[in-house]
Amino acid sequence: MPVNRLSDVATVGVGLNLTEYEVLGIDAPINVADGHARQPLTDTQAQVIDELPQIFAAAHSRPIAEVEREAHVAYLSAVGQHGAPVGTDRILTTYSSSVAMDILARCLGEAGATVALIHPTFDNIPDLLRSRGVRLVPFEEPDIAAAEIPAEIGPGDCVFITTPNNPTGVPVPPEQLEPLAVECRDRGALLALDTSFRGFDERAQYDHYRLLTDIGVDHVIVEDTGKLWPMLELKLGLLVFSEDLALPLRKAYSDILLTASPLIMKLVTHLAADAVAGGFQAMRAGIAENRLLVLDRLAAAAMRTPDGDSKVSVLRVELPGANASEVAACLAAEGVHVLPCGPFYWNRPADGERYIRVALARPRETVERAAERLVAVATAA
Amino acid sequence: MPVNRLSDVATVGVGLNLTEYEVLGIDAPINVADGHARQPLTDTQAQVIDELPQIFAAAHSRPIAEVEREAHVAYLSAVGQHGAPVGTDRILTTYSSSVAMDILARCLGEAGATVALIHPTFDNIPDLLRSRGVRLVPFEEPDIAAAEIPAEIGPGDCVFITTPNNPTGVPVPPEQLEPLAVECRDRGALLALDTSFRGFDERAQYDHYRLLTDIGVDHVIVEDTGKLWPMLELKLGLLVFSEDLALPLRKAYSDILLTASPLIMKLVTHLAADAVAGGFQAMRAGIAENRLLVLDRLAAAAMRTPDGDSKVSVLRVELPGANASEVAACLAAEGVHVLPCGPFYWNRPADGERYIRVALARPRETVERAAERLVAVATAA
Repeated sequence: MPVNRLSDVATVGVGLNLTEYEVLGIDAPINVADGHARQPLTDTQAQVIDELPQIFAAAHSRPIAEVEREAHVAYLSAVGQHGAPVGTDRILTTYSSSVAMDILARCLGEAGATVALIHPTFDNIPDLLRSRGVRLVPFEEPDIAAAEIPAEIGPGDCVFITTPNNPTGVPVPPEQLEPLAVECRDRGALLALDTSFRGFDERAQYDHYRLLTDIGVDHVIVEDTGKLWPMLELKLGLLVFSEDLALPLRKAYSDILLTASPLIMKLVTHLAADAVAGGFQAMRAGIAENRLLVLDRLAAAAMRTPDGDSKVSVLRVELPGANASEVAACLAAEGVHVLPCGPFYWNRPADGERYIRVALARPRETVERAAERLVAVATAA
Repeated sequence: MPVNRLSDVATVGVGLNLTEYEVLGIDAPINVADGHARQPLTDTQAQVIDELPQIFAAAHSRPIAEVEREAHVAYLSAVGQHGAPVGTDRILTTYSSSVAMDILARCLGEAGATVALIHPTFDNIPDLLRSRGVRLVPFEEPDIAAAEIPAEIGPGDCVFITTPNNPTGVPVPPEQLEPLAVECRDRGALLALDTSFRGFDERAQYDHYRLLTDIGVDHVIVEDTGKLWPMLELKLGLLVFSEDLALPLRKAYSDILLTASPLIMKLVTHLAADAVAGGFQAMRAGIAENRLLVLDRLAAAAMRTPDGDSKVSVLRVELPGANASEVAACLAAEGVHVLPCGPFYWNRPADGERYIRVALARPRETVERAAERLVAVATAA
């Protein structure tokens, strides 16, 4: 029974973090809550899946270090990161980007670092950092463009930026990254980047490693294959870091895992090759189509996205009112799951109440239905 | 060039943790260092691998909650845990047992708990707990048998036991678990079990959940599919907990992941079914053969294991001298990797210098060659 009047539903979900909202939607009829890749397999991706038994055998028959290095080369070069330290011991392969981030968070906490963290961003990042005893100061997205690093950041501290950002899709272009990196270097601070969404946006595929290495700033980059390919959570997170870094990342890593799965490494190698051979183009076209579809529905109701330039697989929608929690609850009651954006604004949740995040890495029909219902509920108040 | 005189090699590896030792051996000619499953696939396991494309499709076509529940039923019933809370929200599926343990460690640290931790045990457990600010007191293996819980443990604290233990293989039988659970309950303490190796030992397959629930003790059990099947690290860790537990495990879990891989869940379901249909028997027979092979070599050199009853996939070997670090370094120099046991004895590393741990979940030839060289080097001093 559809519920489409906001006054009919209680505001559920108060106190939930974003992942908990996503859990509610995981098996729902219309799930555009989580940002995981759930679009249909392309034909060439389906061929890779057909070869899983051979991929297993190939992964089994070779030294793990070789299989791992191949995956690093394949993925990092596919997203333009030719200056990454492939072949050194400065790439740690983890189960996921969150595991990689938590290893970094542990080391930052143990070092007593203050972290200037991008605001807004996905809330598990501030939560992981805080759980390790890290002190956070917000680094507002517009201040990043101006390289205005918070005054609190000094030697041994860290500037942490998600690029392209989640949920806004805003990337940090080279002309902004360079002054940020120089400023971090001059203050003796670490520059940490979460680039989980870079596969969707060619503007985030210039060679970050080359730029940061040339400037000589201590840096850590979290890479992620998990947002791109609909592989049922078979994915890798990479924790990549600059030379002579003081943080004991490798030691902290060893407390959590010995190696990631060589099968998944090999799978990533295949998928990255497919991506370069047209897969990325097809993926971006599919996401762009779904984005247009949402934008059309919004336009018809005089609604909009605040992130017109975004290329990533999630899209913010601006609501007529500052009632995202209510809108999300109302939609959830009819089996349509989205994310209210309050928790992204980890320092000022009220700022996010004007926005809903919609995932685009879904079958077209799912996105279409979600957009319809979102517009109907948002404008019914 | 083989090095077989201890005096010829420096003691390398001082300050390494066990996983770091394992990293050194990962692609070595003879690697019996890590306890991961690296034995050859059985015929029926190879059939499961052949079906990976179909398993992917099946995992994709069904609600994740269903796929997950099936995996829980299949695995937990295969190891006798019929009283586990399958179908409730008290089973969290993670990438690995270490990720599960770290989630528990975080919550214990935030609660200010003191943990009585089994001694010896694999060193990433004390390391993970300490990294979360937990205070540790050693709980000596013989004291567990006598249910003599350290006096420091009171309300809100925790007793943490690995059963069967790693590296000793000692399981906690029901007649010991019961008084431990009663004592924990009476003190208001949590009883946490790491049962990663239970698949190898039928003595660890009585229904722990039933026993602990009947006694009414707060409990958390970490289950692990990762030690059993040679699946290239495709595995699940489970974090299972009793009703009305005060620790916010689900919240901490949500900071790390949304769901584990449905493909791996489905794979575990297949492997557990195969295990029940003869796979466990074949696996245990293979491990037993490799154990006998090592024991024969030891006996021929008047050496022994201190763990004659062990059924798990690792075996301690007692050295003529207290020089495990040197023996391990000497073997490593010739491409044979074992674990020196010092770091298992997290509270008194010197106690472990008399023991080497050898992994048995390997091809027969690997174990044979390792045993030969271990005996030769250990008796050459």
